[in-house]
Amino acid sequence: MTHTPAQNGAAVDGTELETALQEITAELQSRSERGQPADYIPPLARVDPAHFGIAVTLTDNRLFAAGEAEMPFSIQSISKVFTLTLALGMAGDSLWRRVGREPSGDAFNSIVLLEHERGIPRNPFINAGALVVADALLSRARAPRETIGEILRFLRFVADDESVAADPAVARAEKATGHRNAALANYLYSCGNLNNPPDHVLGVYFHHCAVTMSCAQLARAGAFLANGGRNPATGRSVVSPERARRINALMMTCGHYDGSGDFAYRVGLPSKSGVGGGILAVVPGVASVAVWSPGLNGQGNSLLGIEALEMLSHRMGWSVF
Amino acid sequence: MTHTPAQNGAAVDGTELETALQEITAELQSRSERGQPADYIPPLARVDPAHFGIAVTLTDNRLFAAGEAEMPFSIQSISKVFTLTLALGMAGDSLWRRVGREPSGDAFNSIVLLEHERGIPRNPFINAGALVVADALLSRARAPRETIGEILRFLRFVADDESVAADPAVARAEKATGHRNAALANYLYSCGNLNNPPDHVLGVYFHHCAVTMSCAQLARAGAFLANGGRNPATGRSVVSPERARRINALMMTCGHYDGSGDFAYRVGLPSKSGVGGGILAVVPGVASVAVWSPGLNGQGNSLLGIEALEMLSHRMGWSVF
Amino acid sequence: MTHTPAQNGAAVDGTELETALQEITAELQSRSERGQPADYIPPLARVDPAHFGIAVTLTDNRLFAAGEAEMPFSIQSISKVFTLTLALGMAGDSLWRRVGREPSGDAFNSIVLLEHERGIPRNPFINAGALVVADALLSRARAPRETIGEILRFLRFVADDESVAADPAVARAEKATGHRNAALANYLYSCGNLNNPPDHVLGVYFHHCAVTMSCAQLARAGAFLANGGRNPATGRSVVSPERARRINALMMTCGHYDGSGDFAYRVGLPSKSGVGGGILAVVPGVASVAVWSPGLNGQGNSLLGIEALEMLSHRMGWSVF
Amino acid sequence: MTHTPAQNGAAVDGTELETALQEITAELQSRSERGQPADYIPPLARVDPAHFGIAVTLTDNRLFAAGEAEMPFSIQSISKVFTLTLALGMAGDSLWRRVGREPSGDAFNSIVLLEHERGIPRNPFINAGALVVADALLSRARAPRETIGEILRFLRFVADDESVAADPAVARAEKATGHRNAALANYLYSCGNLNNPPDHVLGVYFHHCAVTMSCAQLARAGAFLANGGRNPATGRSVVSPERARRINALMMTCGHYDGSGDFAYRVGLPSKSGVGGGILAVVPGVASVAVWSPGLNGQGNSLLGIEALEMLSHRMGWSVF
Repeated sequence: MTHTPAQNGAAVDGTELETALQEITAELQSRSERGQPADYIPPLARVDPAHFGIAVTLTDNRLFAAGEAEMPFSIQSISKVFTLTLALGMAGDSLWRRVGREPSGDAFNSIVLLEHERGIPRNPFINAGALVVADALLSRARAPRETIGEILRFLRFVADDESVAADPAVARAEKATGHRNAALANYLYSCGNLNNPPDHVLGVYFHHCAVTMSCAQLARAGAFLANGGRNPATGRSVVSPERARRINALMMTCGHYDGSGDFAYRVGLPSKSGVGGGILAVVPGVASVAVWSPGLNGQGNSLLGIEALEMLSHRMGWSVF
Repeated sequence: MTHTPAQNGAAVDGTELETALQEITAELQSRSERGQPADYIPPLARVDPAHFGIAVTLTDNRLFAAGEAEMPFSIQSISKVFTLTLALGMAGDSLWRRVGREPSGDAFNSIVLLEHERGIPRNPFINAGALVVADALLSRARAPRETIGEILRFLRFVADDESVAADPAVARAEKATGHRNAALANYLYSCGNLNNPPDHVLGVYFHHCAVTMSCAQLARAGAFLANGGRNPATGRSVVSPERARRINALMMTCGHYDGSGDFAYRVGLPSKSGVGGGILAVVPGVASVAVWSPGLNGQGNSLLGIEALEMLSHRMGWSVF
Repeated sequence: MTHTPAQNGAAVDGTELETALQEITAELQSRSERGQPADYIPPLARVDPAHFGIAVTLTDNRLFAAGEAEMPFSIQSISKVFTLTLALGMAGDSLWRRVGREPSGDAFNSIVLLEHERGIPRNPFINAGALVVADALLSRARAPRETIGEILRFLRFVADDESVAADPAVARAEKATGHRNAALANYLYSCGNLNNPPDHVLGVYFHHCAVTMSCAQLARAGAFLANGGRNPATGRSVVSPERARRINALMMTCGHYDGSGDFAYRVGLPSKSGVGGGILAVVPGVASVAVWSPGLNGQGNSLLGIEALEMLSHRMGWSVF
Repeated sequence: MTHTPAQNGAAVDGTELETALQEITAELQSRSERGQPADYIPPLARVDPAHFGIAVTLTDNRLFAAGEAEMPFSIQSISKVFTLTLALGMAGDSLWRRVGREPSGDAFNSIVLLEHERGIPRNPFINAGALVVADALLSRARAPRETIGEILRFLRFVADDESVAADPAVARAEKATGHRNAALANYLYSCGNLNNPPDHVLGVYFHHCAVTMSCAQLARAGAFLANGGRNPATGRSVVSPERARRINALMMTCGHYDGSGDFAYRVGLPSKSGVGGGILAVVPGVASVAVWSPGLNGQGNSLLGIEALEMLSHRMGWSVF
């Protein structure tokens, strides 16, 4: 962040931003080294790695985009930002008795820390933590189907778009190959940190990971985090300003699994990645940014997505530090 | 951060800040629950837990203080911010081949990750990482005495104060009880990640941890991190703006060991704590803050120091998120 | 040990053994400190801790017993000795590509080592290893029901007793609470070290753990391990002498989870315990011993069962060392 | 084992044993694949891998040998059997409050378990455990020099040979490269599980590892473990029969670090290896066997030494199982 007077979205020079997005997109679309799409389920594996899209929602509700910003993709773990927001709204800070707020220093699906810490996942963004969040959501709604419905309604509300939906083929494929997540859920249950049957929790989890959104939808959906908890398009409050700041803090320290420190060092923005190649980043007070490029780096984050954010944050002076 | 136009130190209302510091100090000085000072060496154990001081340097070079802001204390691990800065200046990014940038998720003196990761410490702020940084500094200066001199000269430069010094009694006491650190240094050496004898590296490490500074000195010394790498008092550049941002990012993700996530969540500022009860925090673009209260919480961070920063950041709207 | 004639059961003084069993039983039956039965499933939790039985089969086929040696109990993990024997008979040494032969140094249901070692369990007696063994058995028989039938036929063969059966209530209760084992099975599957669906493998596992036998049956069933692989009652060969020795070696180093070293130190005999309070021990060349007392010590092994074996081995001079 | 007369060395056919040793030696001397000698210190690295020697002491005091059975080599970790014996004689079972009796499942110099278990090493044969044993010996004698003298006197006593000595060049080389052991000693000290300065403990440790003995000396020195605690040559008691059995049990479960289970499975005898290429094995009641071949396998145990023991145990029917 440049820390000049221009600390809100309204002060951003639209022409400069438009040019930056166009040039970054042109450069990255021409790259031959794009990483490989996730290959553990067919619906992700067959996505063409040549896709690239980016969208920015400023806090004054201007929207900028480049590339395939309207093409829907599987948001995967980015959904965890929204399920956490929803669960905090229901359970409040009592949620933190069941899941920590510390970076894990381990891969997204590690089970090791779970054993050392008796079933309390390190944070809500690793898979084990997101399963606990899904369980918390289930505990109110009772049935997986209702809970999935509730999550979708929340996503439509924050995106201000009734077309947001989960892809049932992706959810089925996740379930068919999700033995590592089944291991985590059963382990959590055996530690007493799930209140609902592992199968129900997994059902909710696989469905919210299977939600499909475009960069434009995702940037709008995340804009409340950049705008003190309030959706700049609708003016409706989603969370309090303090809770928005705190969710941003969690994205900063835990949003990229064992690559979180490196991302903070290189880009300096709170963000959350998904294995579908999407990343949602927040520039507090200024903008939310969604980027999508399906090819992943070795840690399972979008290779060109990270690079796009690094280029954009550098050009626009967008860093919280 | 409120993300109002007031995004630099000059825009801060001095009266409001002055009042905030006085009221926070008055409230915390009256607390009976203050935690216990570190007890592993006599010079720290005999410090009166009733002490409390706080100092703020704004980026327009105004200085505000309350309580015992001029009383020197042992800065301990806060020194790691400055040795890292110095080592990056010498070795540049090649330093990152020897030490990581990820939160450790473990206690400050854990040796476990070191074995799993073959002698590459997770980050430069855990003890093992700081030993590697000390080794990097030694490799240029050749002798421990010279290296210690170089570190002191750097601290005097950034604090703009020739009186900064290490307390030899503290350094001796650290050495006499520093078997855990000796274990780490020998382990690193056995992995080939120290180039100098463990005893030399430990000598440098114990001395820079034994540096004594007041809150006022520390706030001035850290001001370059809030001011794009340039000391606001002297106008001299210490590091590039980008490097300042990156050091802030490391403080945010790794500055409080296994309490980093929680601190980011509660306070939302890059900061580094020391077992002497001091904390240095950075409000990018606006201010550096040093606080001191010798009593520690269960994770070895200043109990009232964290609380003071939480109160101050809340009152002033100072959060990067 | 030189397997000369004087090392066989025929040389044992029957009167001395009879007296030893009676006196040990009398002493242990009078103990008030008996440990607590396993409480994770009702069928085990409601077993009266006052039970005590012991039986010895000598390699000359004499049988000695005291206490409730004919009362059936749940053999639980003791069954792993027999499933391993059966799987080695089918898969031979290729089984060792999927499971190790080293003590784990961890609790019976730890999942940590599994992650560090990429899905290869340390040995066939910890739960993860036994699941791999169950999978190996399933791979031949195709259906869980057939595999369970095959295991039961094998147990009836070695015990020379057609009445051996699994208790369906115990198997159901194991399944209802077996989330830790479900976690292990799903984890193994995700590592590619199960060839059959986790549910099928768990079905086989829960059923063989639910087998019910008396001390007398169990001592007969294990006698082939003391007799060079040949059942002394029927004269039929079960395994080669070398394989019998090797199974004994595994029981010695891995039979009591993280209490294996201590048991070897105190008793000095290959043995395998079960959470139902039973222990099967082998005196190579001389005898197999089965003891049952439902109360467990802190590591999940029969408190008085271990003591009985310690007393018996001391009185009879039965130690492999 | 029933300690009846037929189980003693007197019943061994000397001609058969002599032939076995000659044929095994001839076969192994001709092998081209011999492994590599330890290369971490020059005195071990320059040993010719072509050496091979073997010696057997029967409990009736007959001695058999083949190859270079009289050539001295560095016994290294085999010395831990003797320091443990000596420390148990001094401290008795109270030693077990400071060191465990469980297999570690980890490499010989791992520091990980130490952290998880708060400074209590898993067993006396991993390096950390042997350092605690050395500390226990030091606590009585006060000075490293005296303690080293005491250990040497004990080795001369059990070997019945006044020429046993430590090689000072090896001890110096161990110290010069022993940073991993220095890490362990400092760590143990920091946990309060060493009573003497780490340097003193390391001095004792490096010296007893530097003891030089031949196969013939070593077989005689270990014979008390095969003979109920009594040296068959001198008739003098070293330890009680029960303690001899228990030391054998520890060698069985912990003698080969993370290869202990595999060795038990393949050879079935209590034994302890050293990185100098020696192995001492015990056939309870019958014999002690010392073998030496400097080339090591991947786990740091003598490649041909293990093979020799496997061949010998198979030919002579020597297995405790």
